[in-house]
Amino acid sequence: MRSYLDCTPCFVRQALDAVRKATGDVAVHERVMRRVLAELARFSFEQPPPVMGCCIHRIIREQTGNADPYREAKAASNRLALKLAGELESKVGGAANGFQRALRLALAANVIDLGAKAAGDVDEAAVKAELVRALTAPLDAAAVGRLRSALDAAESVLYLTDNAGEIVFDRLLIERLAPRRVTVGVRGAPVINDATMEDAEAVGLTDLAEVITNGSATPGTVLSECPPEFRRCFERADVVISKGQGNYETLSTERRPGLFFLLRAKCLVLARDLGCEMGDLVVREAGAD
Amino acid sequence: MRSYLDCTPCFVRQALDAVRKATGDVAVHERVMRRVLAELARFSFEQPPPVMGCCIHRIIREQTGNADPYREAKAASNRLALKLAGELESKVGGAANGFQRALRLALAANVIDLGAKAAGDVDEAAVKAELVRALTAPLDAAAVGRLRSALDAAESVLYLTDNAGEIVFDRLLIERLAPRRVTVGVRGAPVINDATMEDAEAVGLTDLAEVITNGSATPGTVLSECPPEFRRCFERADVVISKGQGNYETLSTERRPGLFFLLRAKCLVLARDLGCEMGDLVVREAGAD
Repeated sequence: MRSYLDCTPCFVRQALDAVRKATGDVAVHERVMRRVLAELARFSFEQPPPVMGCCIHRIIREQTGNADPYREAKAASNRLALKLAGELESKVGGAANGFQRALRLALAANVIDLGAKAAGDVDEAAVKAELVRALTAPLDAAAVGRLRSALDAAESVLYLTDNAGEIVFDRLLIERLAPRRVTVGVRGAPVINDATMEDAEAVGLTDLAEVITNGSATPGTVLSECPPEFRRCFERADVVISKGQGNYETLSTERRPGLFFLLRAKCLVLARDLGCEMGDLVVREAGAD
Repeated sequence: MRSYLDCTPCFVRQALDAVRKATGDVAVHERVMRRVLAELARFSFEQPPPVMGCCIHRIIREQTGNADPYREAKAASNRLALKLAGELESKVGGAANGFQRALRLALAANVIDLGAKAAGDVDEAAVKAELVRALTAPLDAAAVGRLRSALDAAESVLYLTDNAGEIVFDRLLIERLAPRRVTVGVRGAPVINDATMEDAEAVGLTDLAEVITNGSATPGTVLSECPPEFRRCFERADVVISKGQGNYETLSTERRPGLFFLLRAKCLVLARDLGCEMGDLVVREAGAD
C-alpha cells in the first residue's frame, strides 16, 4: 500500500510523540522535527508508510542516542498482555470453537499499538474492553473459513508478528496451529513498540516455535530488505499470516497464495484501502477483495 | 505568542485541507505539501503561528492560481450569521444587559473559523448551539468589568475583527459601543476565511463605522507589517479590542493599556498559553494574568 498525503499530519504527530518519549531535551525535539519535516518534504509517497516510519525512528535514535525508546513500554505491554491472557484463558481454552476465539483475541490484541495511537500509552481497561468486545465483533466468516482450510492443509506456516504485548495473544493462536510447523517472524531491531526477538523470548514464543527476524528496523516487512533466509521462508511457507497494519502496508501488493492479513483497522487511510470501517477486525486473503 | 512543535501536525493538516479546498488537482496537492513541509523544516518557532499560516496560504495561492479559495465559504458564513443574528436578535435587542449579551454572542461567533477546524465547513446547527450556549457560559466578570469601564471612558476604539460570519456579531456589539468613535480593522487581502473589506461591506459594517485594513494577508496582526495609518490607529486608540486566535497570537506580547483580547480558545496550545480550558470564552486584558 502506498502512502497518502493524509499520512503526513500523522507522521509528524508520531515523530513528535516518539521523540518526546525518547528524551526530555526540547532542543533535540526541535532538531528531530526539522529533520523529519525535511525528509517528509522529499519522501516518495509511492512507498508504504512504514518506510517513512523507519526513517522517522532512525532519526530519533541517531539524534537522541537512545536505541530503544519503547523498551520499557514494550516490557509493560508484554506484562499486561500476559496478565490479561491469564484472565481470559478460560474463555478461550475451554470453548468449543477455540480456534475462532483465539483468532479473535489475536486480532483484537492488535490494538496494543503505540505507533497508531495519539496518546503514548496503552490503557489496561481499554485493552481489556477491546479483547472482550472482539469475542462477539463482526468477522468475515468466508475469509476465516478460507484461512482455516489453508491452515488445515498447510505443512508450513510463517506467522509475522506486529507489536509487543500483542504477541502474547499471537502465541495463544499459534498454540492451536500445531506449532511444530510454524515459523514466527519478528523485527530485526527495535522500532516503536514492534516485537523483537527479546519480546518473543519474554512471552515464551521461542519455546514454542522457531523465531526468525526480518533483519530490519522497519515497522513492517519490506521483503527486498529482508535477509535471504527470511525471504526463502516467506516464499516457501504454505501459509503466511501477516499481523497488523505495518505488515499489511508493506505486503499488501504481494500476490502469493496462502497469504492472509490479520489486523485491526486503526486509521482512516488504511480502512479506505481495505474498504472497511475504522476499528473493524480484518481477516483478508491477499488478492481477494 | 510563539509557535510550538505541537503546532506542526496542525499546520500540516491545515495546509492539506486548504489546498484540497483550492483545487482538485492531486499533483498540486503534493507539490504544495512538499513546499509547506520544506518551509516548516526551517520555520523559526519564535514567530507566532499566523506567520506560518500566512506562508502556507501564500504557497497555496501561488501554486493553485486561486487568490481566494475561501471566497464562497466566507460569503456562506456571512449569510448564515446574518440569518442566525436575525433569529437571535430578540434575545440581544430587548435584554436589560444588552452589552453583555452582545459581547457573549460576539465571543461565541469566533467559533466560525475554518482555520482551526479539522473539517472544512461550518455547520449551522453547531454554530447556533454555540451561540445559545454562550448566553449562559462562564465568563470572567472582572475582565468584562474592566473592558466595560475602559469603553465607558474611551473616546476612540479600534476593533480588530477575525473571521467572516463572525463579523456579523461583531457588528451587533459595535452598534452598542457608540460606533462614531469606533474604527474597525480587517485583513488587507484574503487568507483562509478571515474578514476582508469585502466582508465588512457585505454585512454592513462599512455603513456603521470607519473600516481600515491591516494591509496584509497574515491571519493575524503583525504590527511591523501593517501600514503606518493602521499602526498609528493601534497606538492612539484609547481601547483596542482584538478578536480571535490569530490576533491574540500576534498581539499577545503587546503591552499597551486598554488592549483587550476577545476569543474562544479553539486549540490546546492556545488554551495552555491563556491558562484556560479548550472551548472557553475568553476576555483578557493585555498584561493581566
